Amino acid sequence: MTEAVANIGVVGLAAMGASLSRNLARHGNTVAVFNRHYSRAQTLMTEHGSEGKFVPAQTLEEFVGSLTRPRTAIIMVKAGEPTDDMINALADLMEPGDIIVDAGNAYFKDTIRREQAIRARGLHFVGCGVSGGEEGALLGPSMMPGGTEESWRTLGPILKSIAAVAEGEPCVTHIGTDGAGHFVKMVHNGIEYADMQLIAESYDLMRRGLGLEPEAIAQVFEEWNKGDLNSYLVQITAEVLHHMDAKTGKPFIDIVTDQAGMKGTGTWTVQTALELGVPVTGIGEAVFARGLSSTPALRQEAEAKGLGGPQAEGAFAALAADPEERSAFIEDIRQALYASKIVAYAQGFNEMEEGAKVYGWTLDLGAIARIWRGGCIIRAKFLNRISDAYGSGEQFGSLLFDPFFKKAVEGAQDSWRRVVARAAQAGLPAPVFSSSLAYYDALRSRRLPAALIQGQRDLFGAHTYGRVDEPGAFHTLWAGDKSEIKA
Amino acid sequence: MTEAVANIGVVGLAAMGASLSRNLARHGNTVAVFNRHYSRAQTLMTEHGSEGKFVPAQTLEEFVGSLTRPRTAIIMVKAGEPTDDMINALADLMEPGDIIVDAGNAYFKDTIRREQAIRARGLHFVGCGVSGGEEGALLGPSMMPGGTEESWRTLGPILKSIAAVAEGEPCVTHIGTDGAGHFVKMVHNGIEYADMQLIAESYDLMRRGLGLEPEAIAQVFEEWNKGDLNSYLVQITAEVLHHMDAKTGKPFIDIVTDQAGMKGTGTWTVQTALELGVPVTGIGEAVFARGLSSTPALRQEAEAKGLGGPQAEGAFAALAADPEERSAFIEDIRQALYASKIVAYAQGFNEMEEGAKVYGWTLDLGAIARIWRGGCIIRAKFLNRISDAYGSGEQFGSLLFDPFFKKAVEGAQDSWRRVVARAAQAGLPAPVFSSSLAYYDALRSRRLPAALIQGQRDLFGAHTYGRVDEPGAFHTLWAGDKSEIKA
Repeated sequence: MTEAVANIGVVGLAAMGASLSRNLARHGNTVAVFNRHYSRAQTLMTEHGSEGKFVPAQTLEEFVGSLTRPRTAIIMVKAGEPTDDMINALADLMEPGDIIVDAGNAYFKDTIRREQAIRARGLHFVGCGVSGGEEGALLGPSMMPGGTEESWRTLGPILKSIAAVAEGEPCVTHIGTDGAGHFVKMVHNGIEYADMQLIAESYDLMRRGLGLEPEAIAQVFEEWNKGDLNSYLVQITAEVLHHMDAKTGKPFIDIVTDQAGMKGTGTWTVQTALELGVPVTGIGEAVFARGLSSTPALRQEAEAKGLGGPQAEGAFAALAADPEERSAFIEDIRQALYASKIVAYAQGFNEMEEGAKVYGWTLDLGAIARIWRGGCIIRAKFLNRISDAYGSGEQFGSLLFDPFFKKAVEGAQDSWRRVVARAAQAGLPAPVFSSSLAYYDALRSRRLPAALIQGQRDLFGAHTYGRVDEPGAFHTLWAGDKSEIKA
Repeated sequence: MTEAVANIGVVGLAAMGASLSRNLARHGNTVAVFNRHYSRAQTLMTEHGSEGKFVPAQTLEEFVGSLTRPRTAIIMVKAGEPTDDMINALADLMEPGDIIVDAGNAYFKDTIRREQAIRARGLHFVGCGVSGGEEGALLGPSMMPGGTEESWRTLGPILKSIAAVAEGEPCVTHIGTDGAGHFVKMVHNGIEYADMQLIAESYDLMRRGLGLEPEAIAQVFEEWNKGDLNSYLVQITAEVLHHMDAKTGKPFIDIVTDQAGMKGTGTWTVQTALELGVPVTGIGEAVFARGLSSTPALRQEAEAKGLGGPQAEGAFAALAADPEERSAFIEDIRQALYASKIVAYAQGFNEMEEGAKVYGWTLDLGAIARIWRGGCIIRAKFLNRISDAYGSGEQFGSLLFDPFFKKAVEGAQDSWRRVVARAAQAGLPAPVFSSSLAYYDALRSRRLPAALIQGQRDLFGAHTYGRVDEPGAFHTLWAGDKSEIKA
C-alpha cells in the first residue's frame, strides 16, 4: 500500500510536465509523478531526482494513493481525447473534495463542460492556463487557474510557490470559476499573436523598406527594449536577429522559412470575439497574416504571375540614405508599434470584459495584467500601466480611455499615420498597424457610415433602422411611396 | 382524404414563405401551403389566391397528403429549434424518396447533421440558400441548393421555374452534397458584408472627408453604376442617398442611427474561414466594423473623453475646393473600391475552395458566380468576369491571378494606395480598404517577416522552424550554445 505523502501530483512527463514537476519539487513540494510509459518517470528521477522530493508511480492507482488529501493532480497530457480520458481515469480513482487540474491549452468551452461533469461527481476541476513555455514551467510561469474558490484554497499556495515573481508578487491569481482561466489564457495568446505580428511588421519596414541588415535592426530592438516597449518579445527579437546561422554564415533570420505556424489559441480568440461581438481587429489580422504566410503554393503562384505593384525592397532608400531621416522614420515605427500594441491590448481586454458578462465570471482585469508582468510570453513593463489603469477603480469601456494610454496614443499618432501611409504607398503589408489605426479612428468617430449600411439593409431586407430623433424601429416602404412605418 | 395534387409545398407563410409560394404558383406549380396558424394561409388565399394553384392545408397531415410523389416540401420557418421540429414532423409523415428542403439561413454544419439524420431515414434533405430578400423570393431569387443528385432531379425544375434569370440562365444550380448550399450562401453573405462596408467607406470619404452632400454622393454612385462597379448594391446606395426624410426634411441618411445590425452569416463566414485557415481579412474587418458601430456606450464614452486626432470632417476640404482634384480623388475612391472588392471576392472564393476540400464537395465556382449574377444582393455585372475566370478551365489559386482581375487591380492600385494613405493621415477609418491592400501586398511579397515569428516561436516555445536550404524541422538551442538540432 502506497503511503500518502505527496501534496501535489503531475500526470504526463513530457517537456512541460517534467519542467513543472521539477519546479514544484524545487520549491518544497512533494511531487507524485506519473507517465503512461514509466521510463519517462525513471529518466526524470535519474536526471533530476536530487532536486527535491519526488514520488514516482508505476500505475495511476499508485499515483493517486501517494497523494495527501485533498488529492491534487495536475494533468499535462495532449489536448482533446487524451485529456478527457485522463480526467475520467483520475476521477474514477479520486474521492469527493479532490482536485483535478488541466494545465494544457484547452478550449475554455471544453473546460466549462469538464468542470460541470467533474463537479457533478463531487470533485473539483480546475482549468489552468500556463504561459511561459518550457523555461517558464521550470523557472516560473504565469498561471491562470479557473475553478471553484474552494479548490483555490488548496491549489493557490502550491501554484504561488512555483510562479514567476514580478515586483515581489507571484504571477498567479484565481481568475474565476469554471473555464475563466483557460478563457483568459486564450486571450493572452491572442494578444501575443498581435504583438508578434506588430514586431514582424516593424522589422519588415526596416529590412525591406529601409534596407537595414538584421544586425542593425537587432540594435534598434535593443534600444527599444530600454523604453516604453520594454518586453520579453522585443528582447528575444533582438536575440533572434543577432543570431548567425552556423551552416551558411548568413543571418539566421534569412535561412528560416517565412511560414508562421500556429496551434489554435489565436484562432479561438478571434472566433470567440466574433461570437461575443467584440472587435479584435489586430488579433484577427495577425492570425490571418500567419495563415497567408503558410500557404506556400498560393504565394509561389503569386510570385510566378508577377502581381504588379511598387518594389518593397528599398522603398525607403532615400530616407535610409539620410541618417537623420532614417532615425526619424525608425522612431515613427517605434511609435506606431507602441500605439498599435495599446489597441491590441484594449481589444483583448474588451474581449475579457464581454466574456465575463456572458459566462458569468468576475474578472479582476488589474490583477490579470499584474500576473502577466512576469513568466509569460507577453510580459512587459507596459503591463504595470494596464494594471494601474484597471486598479484605479474608475470604470471605463476601453484601455484607450485611460489617461495614460490616451496620452500615449495621442502622442504616437502622427508617427503611426505616417507609417501606415508610407507602407501603403511603398507596397509593404502592415495589416495590424493599419487595422489598429482604423479601429482607433472608427472609435473616435462621432458618426460612422454604418447608417448607410442600415439604409441598405432596410431597403433590400426590411431589416428596419433606428432614428436619431425618436426611439423605436422603423421601415421605409422603398418599393412603395417611400413613406415610413413603425416596425 | 386529401387528393395528392401539389407538386411542391411550402411550410411557414411569413414574408419569405408567402412570397416564395406566390412565385411558385405564378410559375405553373401547384403549391400546397401550411402555416402553424391557419389564418396566415387564409390571408394568402384571400389576397393572392388568384395568382395560381394553391392547396391550403389546415394540418400538416393534410399538407403532406396533398403532395404528389416524391413529396417535396420547402420549410421557411425560424432557424434553430423550430426548423428542427418541423423537419422531424415532416419526416414522420413522409416516406422514403420524399424531399425536405430547408430554405432558411441555417448554419452549414447543422445542415450536414440534419441531412445525415434524414438520409438515414431514407428521405432526402436539401439545405438551400436563398438570396434576394422578400422581393427576390417573389420575383426571382438566387438559390443555392445542396443535397443529393437524386433530390436535384425533382427539385431542380421547380427551382428553375422560380429563379431569377440572368442573361437567359436561371440563377440556381445544384451546389453540392449535404451542407454545400448553405455553406456557399454563407460565403455569399460574407462577401456582401465586405461589399457593403466598402461602399460605406467610400461614402464616408466623400461625406466627411470631401464634405459632399448626400445628394451629390448619390450622383457619384449613379455614375459608378454605369461602369465596372455596376451592381445592385451600388444602385440601392444611390437610392438610399437620394431619399429625403419626410418628417424632418433632412437627408434620410442623416436621421438613421449609425449602428449596423447583423444576423450571423457574416460572423459564421469569418469563424469558418479561421477554422479552414483561409484569410478573409476584408470580410473580417467588415464584420468587426459593424460590431464596433453597434456599441453605442463605448462610442459615447470615446466621444466624451475626446480621443485626439485629426478632424475627419472636411479633412479633404482643399481637394474638394478644386473641381479637378475633387474629381480625381473621387476616381481614386472608385478604383480603391473596385480593387478592394476584387480582393474580397478572391478571399471568399478561396474559402469556398478550401471548404470544398475539407467537406468533400465538388464546387463549380464558375457556376456559382453565374447564379449570383441575378436575384441576390451581390448581383453585379462583375460576376460575369468571375464566371469567365473560373470557366476558362485554367486552375489558379486566386482570382487575383486571373489576367482580367490582375490587370484591373494593377490598374487601380495607385489610386488605392493614395486613398489608404490619405485616409490614414486624415483620421478617416477605412478598415476594409487598408486590410485588402495589405493582403494584396502580402500575397505578392516574395518573403514575409513571418520568418521572424518562427524564430521567436522557436526561441520561447521550441516550436521548431524550416530552413530555406534544407527540408525538415529544426530547433536552435537558444539557452545553450545556440547550435542547431534536427527536430
